[in-house]
Amino acid sequence: MTTPVNTKEVRELIAQFFNTQMPFHNFIGLDVISYEKDTIELQIKMKPELVGNIVHGILHGGVTATMLDVAGGMMVFAQVLENMELVTHDTVMARLQNLGTIDLRIDYLRPGRGNVFTATATVIRAGNKVAVARMELHNENGDHIAFGTGTYMVG
Amino acid sequence: MTTPVNTKEVRELIAQFFNTQMPFHNFIGLDVISYEKDTIELQIKMKPELVGNIVHGILHGGVTATMLDVAGGMMVFAQVLENMELVTHDTVMARLQNLGTIDLRIDYLRPGRGNVFTATATVIRAGNKVAVARMELHNENGDHIAFGTGTYMVG
Amino acid sequence: MTTPVNTKEVRELIAQFFNTQMPFHNFIGLDVISYEKDTIELQIKMKPELVGNIVHGILHGGVTATMLDVAGGMMVFAQVLENMELVTHDTVMARLQNLGTIDLRIDYLRPGRGNVFTATATVIRAGNKVAVARMELHNENGDHIAFGTGTYMVG
Amino acid sequence: MTTPVNTKEVRELIAQFFNTQMPFHNFIGLDVISYEKDTIELQIKMKPELVGNIVHGILHGGVTATMLDVAGGMMVFAQVLENMELVTHDTVMARLQNLGTIDLRIDYLRPGRGNVFTATATVIRAGNKVAVARMELHNENGDHIAFGTGTYMVG
Repeated sequence: MTTPVNTKEVRELIAQFFNTQMPFHNFIGLDVISYEKDTIELQIKMKPELVGNIVHGILHGGVTATMLDVAGGMMVFAQVLENMELVTHDTVMARLQNLGTIDLRIDYLRPGRGNVFTATATVIRAGNKVAVARMELHNENGDHIAFGTGTYMVG
Repeated sequence: MTTPVNTKEVRELIAQFFNTQMPFHNFIGLDVISYEKDTIELQIKMKPELVGNIVHGILHGGVTATMLDVAGGMMVFAQVLENMELVTHDTVMARLQNLGTIDLRIDYLRPGRGNVFTATATVIRAGNKVAVARMELHNENGDHIAFGTGTYMVG
Repeated sequence: MTTPVNTKEVRELIAQFFNTQMPFHNFIGLDVISYEKDTIELQIKMKPELVGNIVHGILHGGVTATMLDVAGGMMVFAQVLENMELVTHDTVMARLQNLGTIDLRIDYLRPGRGNVFTATATVIRAGNKVAVARMELHNENGDHIAFGTGTYMVG
Repeated sequence: MTTPVNTKEVRELIAQFFNTQMPFHNFIGLDVISYEKDTIELQIKMKPELVGNIVHGILHGGVTATMLDVAGGMMVFAQVLENMELVTHDTVMARLQNLGTIDLRIDYLRPGRGNVFTATATVIRAGNKVAVARMELHNENGDHIAFGTGTYMVG
């Protein structure tokens, strides 16, 4: 499968893959809502299994970390796609295999109260080998729950 | 319930609480194996739902982040317990309510291959208001999967 | 000296103090250009002693880290000032003694080329005990050299 | 200059270079005390210009960040040297040009009191493109002043 494809189609396939084939994403209910060249939205609906503190009923910090890590990784990969000379199923798969988080920082700003949590990301350093993204988590009221910064291997 | 208790009993109660009453911990299968004054061991057994990459069958980085965050938080809280002047059920609960992660750094060293993952932690800055811990994740072969550094609000 | 003063005057005194009484700031040529309630600008002019790489003639990463650390610390302190009930010389000095960096992350985005470097900061978590700020370093052309995130003890 | 050299000689040349040709290192008095395959020691003697707080007379946190950043960078480069197939003056220079800090975390553990500060480093992730090191700063009494974690571009 070496037929060139456009990056929009590739992103749609990747989003579909992340929504249906990643066991841990399905387990916690992580959905890719939108995945464009420069923006991404991941969403999770609160459910009892994701609670980290039964007194306060808030989202576990590990779910926050998961969402921000995935949002950053997918966002830097969108930038990799735009810079690839030849975008085929095979070349994309080869690059996707190389994608990995090197390090991740999460800044927890306030308790994870809410019903729907949305993670977004922006690339702050685009590179052929290493890329860095900044991520944010908000609830449905726009409350800013957490910031993230992730350094990813992309090549 | 203001009868003084010893810190060993308190740690046992907290471990039991984390094992049975924290929904997200039960969901992913996180177990507190040991919880002493200076050491802690959390464990998770690999299961299909925790996989982050079906090609490689490795642990999702979000599970790694979760384990390291919890290990660090429990370890700094053990140090808080040792420094409390009056350890009763009520004073412990009040302090536990204040425990929260301020920021967390994860360094992913190698892919999360394995069947059993163990998180450990050490306090590197003990304070009345803020404490910092360093954490490690290993698999059953002793392979070092990840490092963590967490800054926690403790008072 | 317990006469109440306003926070604008206090910030001017602190800026003056940082400009004239902090040995390392004078040594490297760090100047507080502006210090308002919600914004800060620190500046450094390139000079041969600050070069970290003679081949490329770029700013040493340690100078970048210094500028971002100081910008974040001063910015969170401005927020502390606004929240103080009684602002006198003595209460300000007491709080300033408690100000300290707990942890700092620097993301180096591109080489530090330029003649004038400006550090700015924004508070992302305001607290009575701990505060978190995000910082940026730009050169005179607006090139974004580095991001920073700092967690500070403030009380 | 393509004559193969051994890595010990290369490290000696690099140490000499860092001691004599790096303007900011000379400015603050940073000395490479030892530079082996697996270990490194950088030292700085306290002097009035490095003070960050005249009340307490302690080392400025920016100097701490500088020392830890350089120690980590040199340590990962020593590992790069060991993995190079052909070590000549030219190949080493080419790799050294590519060395750069991607991100850096500093954990400040206690005030920087002392007369002589020593930075050490260990590689925790060795790679051809990216490497990660952990660093420590101690004073002459063995007091542990700070921890660092740095992610470096190495190829």
